[in-house]
Amino acid sequence: MDILIYNGVLVTMDDDLTVVEDGAVRIRDNEILSCGTMDDVAGTEAGILIDARGGIIMPGLVNGHTHTPMSMFRGLADDLPLDKWLNEHIFPAEASQVNPGSVSKWTAHSCREMLLAGITTCCDGYFHEIHAARAMVDTGIRAVAGQGVIDFPAPGVGDPGQNIASAVAYVNEAKKLSSRLMPSIFCHSPYTCSGKTLKAAKEAARDAGVLFQVHVSESRGEPEMIPGLNGRSVVAYLDDLGILDASTLLVHCVWVDEADMKIIGKRGCGVIHCPESNMKLASGIAPVPEMLAAGIAAGLGTDGCASNNDHDLFAEMDTAAKLHKVVAMDPCVMDAVTCLKMATIDGARAIGLDRRIGSISPGKLADIIVVDTGKPHMIPMHNVYSGLVYAAKSSDVSWVLVDGIVRVKAGELV
Amino acid sequence: MDILIYNGVLVTMDDDLTVVEDGAVRIRDNEILSCGTMDDVAGTEAGILIDARGGIIMPGLVNGHTHTPMSMFRGLADDLPLDKWLNEHIFPAEASQVNPGSVSKWTAHSCREMLLAGITTCCDGYFHEIHAARAMVDTGIRAVAGQGVIDFPAPGVGDPGQNIASAVAYVNEAKKLSSRLMPSIFCHSPYTCSGKTLKAAKEAARDAGVLFQVHVSESRGEPEMIPGLNGRSVVAYLDDLGILDASTLLVHCVWVDEADMKIIGKRGCGVIHCPESNMKLASGIAPVPEMLAAGIAAGLGTDGCASNNDHDLFAEMDTAAKLHKVVAMDPCVMDAVTCLKMATIDGARAIGLDRRIGSISPGKLADIIVVDTGKPHMIPMHNVYSGLVYAAKSSDVSWVLVDGIVRVKAGELV
Repeated sequence: MDILIYNGVLVTMDDDLTVVEDGAVRIRDNEILSCGTMDDVAGTEAGILIDARGGIIMPGLVNGHTHTPMSMFRGLADDLPLDKWLNEHIFPAEASQVNPGSVSKWTAHSCREMLLAGITTCCDGYFHEIHAARAMVDTGIRAVAGQGVIDFPAPGVGDPGQNIASAVAYVNEAKKLSSRLMPSIFCHSPYTCSGKTLKAAKEAARDAGVLFQVHVSESRGEPEMIPGLNGRSVVAYLDDLGILDASTLLVHCVWVDEADMKIIGKRGCGVIHCPESNMKLASGIAPVPEMLAAGIAAGLGTDGCASNNDHDLFAEMDTAAKLHKVVAMDPCVMDAVTCLKMATIDGARAIGLDRRIGSISPGKLADIIVVDTGKPHMIPMHNVYSGLVYAAKSSDVSWVLVDGIVRVKAGELV
Repeated sequence: MDILIYNGVLVTMDDDLTVVEDGAVRIRDNEILSCGTMDDVAGTEAGILIDARGGIIMPGLVNGHTHTPMSMFRGLADDLPLDKWLNEHIFPAEASQVNPGSVSKWTAHSCREMLLAGITTCCDGYFHEIHAARAMVDTGIRAVAGQGVIDFPAPGVGDPGQNIASAVAYVNEAKKLSSRLMPSIFCHSPYTCSGKTLKAAKEAARDAGVLFQVHVSESRGEPEMIPGLNGRSVVAYLDDLGILDASTLLVHCVWVDEADMKIIGKRGCGVIHCPESNMKLASGIAPVPEMLAAGIAAGLGTDGCASNNDHDLFAEMDTAAKLHKVVAMDPCVMDAVTCLKMATIDGARAIGLDRRIGSISPGKLADIIVVDTGKPHMIPMHNVYSGLVYAAKSSDVSWVLVDGIVRVKAGELV
């Protein structure tokens, strides 16, 4: 039996940015069968009827970057210099507290937080990732889940000589879990992985047909920490290693220049912008309007909860819009539609899933949320995009469906 | 009979920043009778028992700057150049839609939004302010409510020659309304009010013993719009007019330099920082860490909903912390405690009410909120200040008391 979501403003985020005032969506199995006006999708009866109560029916949000298990460290150490934060707090905490049990527990916790906040897909990278992946599948979220690769002993990979082999074994295991779980390989960064490791990890990701993720140009001092640069930019260095292509996701890209953006655009890499993390850690401000103008597929990410401290893409959209306006001293940049695209279809494009998710169109997977518009802060609603980016809170999310399955109902986890 | 709030982490924001793990507060009439551990405030029975359920008991938030009726224009016109936004959208909408009825209706609406978000005091400025003031009193919020003064025909003041007289008449009328309503005079700005008007308005405010508010140095181009500057800074000009003292509130102060800050500090003026409004309108970034270092009493404000677009101080705290970190390229500036102080006791100090509100201490007015900590985004809680600034949402506010009266109960307006 179908699921019918009706009586809402349908914000499709499709190519034409179609908005339907008296909108509805019909779902069959895990796909969108039809969408449009209530008349358009009427017809045969439905097994589940979801009344949007005049709210907004829209695609689920895509969190392009996080480290789900790190919710265990939420608020553990804030307002500190980066080296003190990492070396005196986060690294020791990871060494003592990260194990299969904690990864499983806190990944599930983060997934519950994300589902409640309207995030239907996350792109993750951490260690013991098979335990994260299983927890993701159990909670019902859609996920790209990357096993971490780093040239130091890491949780679950005591011998860094085994980091690629561990990642490959993970990918093979994780592929069996669920159609909602896409394994990935996540190299931590070019300053914690040698050129050799980066090349080998990308090669393994190519062989397995999975997304390759890497933190790139997060901090101003990064080039000094990479031995083989020889005056090249970090992006140029990665390009020379041959690891940049449409299946490579570059996270952060704070300190990239025009030449870097040209390379990223030419190679078709996705980019994830994490405005709140970059601000809170004082990493810098990524040239996002410039990247978008260069045609780069750029999505939004929350980053892990140790550096944000939550999984809230409504807040990231609002912050991204406002941050780039004041930096450019131009209130027109990063308008509401642009930010909403980054959190939906553009984020999906960045992680290579835009043919299946990120907008509401017949044939796409049924990852759909309903945003309640009845609270005072959502009234009046002169413009639906402004409402979603500048006024909506993640707590306004009332219904969440992933893969055609109801995961949040009337604001509560099912 | 007393009200007893118990079973929460008590965050007092008092001078010693006292935090009590198993905290409680006893309220008698409209004042705090005692606070401390549950044992400390035990004793005689209470008429109303409020179980904080392990959440956070803290002072209500102080919204240092807003234009409450402007919620009617929420999302009306966003992502536009300032002149187009003002001249083609906001000013025409104000001319056609602002009247006693709409001011009353949308002020009440904004007050409901603020109360639900844990704001127990707002500092407002608009036209037809007597109608705003009455609506504020009806909703139960505590407010400093300023009648607007501007050298142009304005809603309710068709003849600008009457702007001071109208404000004085308003103050006399509003003084009779409620002990929770403190009238004020709000000069729009030094570029829309002549030096003569500014002086006369301040004189009237002094005579009446009320707060004088004015937008100052919001945009970079402001000096060019003020005829009589003669090379002086806007702040120096206002100082020369004799209008700066401890009962003058300077809103925005984005484009102030060291010399300006010295003047502001010497005169004891309060300052309100509106980070989200300043970002969204691309006004600039106020030197807040520098103002705080100079000992200036600085609070946080949301500004009106046409330029933000909501009344959410939890979001403003988070944004203020992150914005100033990335601008200073220093993750240590504007730590969580500093931001929480700005939203409570420092904001109260800026608007001249710190002896009565802004912290939880015996004898202070009972403006208290409870923040629920049971949702996934608030778990774990390694640090209560981090939790409140970097993870809490306004939707976590479960109880709100103003003047000892319950206004929000279990997240719903009473």
